[in-house]
Amino acid sequence: MPEKEATIEAAVQKLTRNYREGDLFLSRSGKRLPSRDQVIDITRQLRAIVFPGFFGNDSCAREFPEYYVGFHLNELFDRLCRQIEIAFEYDKETRESGERHAREVTARFFESLPGIQELLMKDVQAGFDGDPAAKSKEEIIFCYPGLYAIYVYRLAHVLYLEKVPFIPRIMTEHAHSRTGIDINPGARIGEYFFIDHGTGVVIGETTEIGNNVKLYQGVTLGALSTRMGQALANVKRHPTIEDNVTIYSNSTVLGGDTVIGANSVVAGNTFIIESVPAGTKVSVKNPELVIRAPGLKEE
Amino acid sequence: MPEKEATIEAAVQKLTRNYREGDLFLSRSGKRLPSRDQVIDITRQLRAIVFPGFFGNDSCAREFPEYYVGFHLNELFDRLCRQIEIAFEYDKETRESGERHAREVTARFFESLPGIQELLMKDVQAGFDGDPAAKSKEEIIFCYPGLYAIYVYRLAHVLYLEKVPFIPRIMTEHAHSRTGIDINPGARIGEYFFIDHGTGVVIGETTEIGNNVKLYQGVTLGALSTRMGQALANVKRHPTIEDNVTIYSNSTVLGGDTVIGANSVVAGNTFIIESVPAGTKVSVKNPELVIRAPGLKEE
Amino acid sequence: MPEKEATIEAAVQKLTRNYREGDLFLSRSGKRLPSRDQVIDITRQLRAIVFPGFFGNDSCAREFPEYYVGFHLNELFDRLCRQIEIAFEYDKETRESGERHAREVTARFFESLPGIQELLMKDVQAGFDGDPAAKSKEEIIFCYPGLYAIYVYRLAHVLYLEKVPFIPRIMTEHAHSRTGIDINPGARIGEYFFIDHGTGVVIGETTEIGNNVKLYQGVTLGALSTRMGQALANVKRHPTIEDNVTIYSNSTVLGGDTVIGANSVVAGNTFIIESVPAGTKVSVKNPELVIRAPGLKEE
Repeated sequence: MPEKEATIEAAVQKLTRNYREGDLFLSRSGKRLPSRDQVIDITRQLRAIVFPGFFGNDSCAREFPEYYVGFHLNELFDRLCRQIEIAFEYDKETRESGERHAREVTARFFESLPGIQELLMKDVQAGFDGDPAAKSKEEIIFCYPGLYAIYVYRLAHVLYLEKVPFIPRIMTEHAHSRTGIDINPGARIGEYFFIDHGTGVVIGETTEIGNNVKLYQGVTLGALSTRMGQALANVKRHPTIEDNVTIYSNSTVLGGDTVIGANSVVAGNTFIIESVPAGTKVSVKNPELVIRAPGLKEE
Repeated sequence: MPEKEATIEAAVQKLTRNYREGDLFLSRSGKRLPSRDQVIDITRQLRAIVFPGFFGNDSCAREFPEYYVGFHLNELFDRLCRQIEIAFEYDKETRESGERHAREVTARFFESLPGIQELLMKDVQAGFDGDPAAKSKEEIIFCYPGLYAIYVYRLAHVLYLEKVPFIPRIMTEHAHSRTGIDINPGARIGEYFFIDHGTGVVIGETTEIGNNVKLYQGVTLGALSTRMGQALANVKRHPTIEDNVTIYSNSTVLGGDTVIGANSVVAGNTFIIESVPAGTKVSVKNPELVIRAPGLKEE
Repeated sequence: MPEKEATIEAAVQKLTRNYREGDLFLSRSGKRLPSRDQVIDITRQLRAIVFPGFFGNDSCAREFPEYYVGFHLNELFDRLCRQIEIAFEYDKETRESGERHAREVTARFFESLPGIQELLMKDVQAGFDGDPAAKSKEEIIFCYPGLYAIYVYRLAHVLYLEKVPFIPRIMTEHAHSRTGIDINPGARIGEYFFIDHGTGVVIGETTEIGNNVKLYQGVTLGALSTRMGQALANVKRHPTIEDNVTIYSNSTVLGGDTVIGANSVVAGNTFIIESVPAGTKVSVKNPELVIRAPGLKEE
């Protein structure tokens, strides 16, 4: 089997040379990177605390709620704190320990958890009120990809505000992979938020969304242009959606100065790059359809 | 580490208070909910019976088909029956056992399995006939997300018709997560159905689809408006697609009275909210393109 | 429990009859099919070699790079070779062993791995330069679904060119499931390729893409019509995208003769079925929006 030996030897030489010459195949200067698997597992495990009847041990949570929550929080605190510490240390030039800062950030994250739990129950209510196909609120918690994406976003947003590297994006890209809904952890989103179906939704980093907003599949809240690349970092590039707005499927709203005014409705398949006043209904002027008997040559 | 202890103690108090005060963090009145993991695992395991050459033990299925099928069916019958029983009992006000009803429903589900298997082979044929990129029918069974979504839908639809709570939607949302294709278990879909690529497809609960229909990625068969929320439950809100219709990518058809007549073709990116007669080809009138030399200011 | 026994007995009879009468429930003429799980696991494991700092054992790869790479390559060579052998043998009429051919193909696959590794680092750079929301190149390797889809495509394309049955498509459909990005392994794609967000992107089998091309979510590079089905196999059905082109979200480019000239920009939501000259910016003429006060009847 000479070709196997020769092939492997040659590949080893070239791959290890790439390791030495590239600056990113190995992690930088021997520092560890956070574990993607750990971060995703912590994200999932937190659901056992937030919705124990659905994703945890319901009878334990019912009979011994303090023990149940305390046991899980203690373990998840340590695991998340370790990942946050690794993330901060990787990003710093110095080798000083990030442990203290990581502990403070982790503490603030867990302080925010009960409030997130309350927000999520409002999101569940918004889903039930907004979708005639929903048979119960339980179904929304169990099955709706929109709720999972919002759950993960609300957790990740806390860590984004704390400027934790890597971890918020690992969380939201996990949700994106599972749901097709891509909410950047930097977006600001109010109460009673609902995304129905959801595949293809993109909500950019500097988007602001008010209360009682409903989005459908394929909606993009994006930037007008990314030609300037990193020079646009930290500039508001994505739109503002005010309270009580509904945006139907596959519509696009672009631009950091674009505001969809409160109580507006954007119909499906609409492409918007300028602001829309409050209280209006926006749609594309009915596009002219061409209807032909089959077999005729296209005009 | 004072901040950890204080944080966890405060979070435990608030989270457990939410458990007591909210009505959905714990399951209702101590009743169990079905297991999402069990339902998804049963859905996957059924593929070993439907397509043993691809997802099961092919040599066992070939040499001892009766033992092979009987062994698996016996186990899956009991597991599915248990989940159906839990689902029925959760949804009822009384505490009477749902075991008898669950057994009858489970029996009817397994009675329908051979017919579903035959339908799926027609769906495979439709995929092979309809996609020049398909190298073989085996490739469609192995790889095509459209076939997986249809497989799960055909199983879930049987349980939807039996009014089983939670389980049909858990099944189809599992397929949605894996494929980006969201078929509500209530939709009615004929033979020789094919979805190519599939990401972003949404087929609403009251959609009716005839035989020999082909859909592409991003097609929405949806409702005109959901503003009335739960008041629209059980109303026909989604369109009817008659036999031999093809709908190309990213087109949208909305409304419960909208009918796409037999043998019609809907071109890509078309937005339809009114019926289309049989035997026609529909497209948006070619939208005027603006072509500019780069660097010029936008009009 | 008579209904269970009777149901299972009847189902066993019908399902096994389907096995005998259908030609695809069992694999053909007793030949084995490749293992989907094995192929996906090999695809994932290769990331530990390509990006050891992120998905492997970084400290081992740093201290003993030759041992690290050699150990993994040896194992993956044998596993991939076995799957390729099974795939070739399934597809052949004869029963002659495909072992020699499989070994040669596997050797060429591993010879191409260092070059793919170098290409991927250019793709990472393109992602960082092109996305103001990217905090670091590490974030792109860790989190960006576009990079994962391109990684899997670049591996699968090598096996597509070697005409290996099943395996390239199993690989790319795994990536499609995880990312919502559907790149057919037959497409030809140049250097510095970036897909942002990505859900809903479809790149057809005969697409050609130059260097420095950037795509956004929902972009379809597809065929004009598939009405002729398998008669179109091996015909160029998908467009050509020249160097330095950006195509914004949810735009569609169709047809084997359609060329988007170098240095062009295609705005969002644009539908193109004819060639566009080099150096131009293309958008739909701003569609007329209908803005109404709410509550008024639709025109």
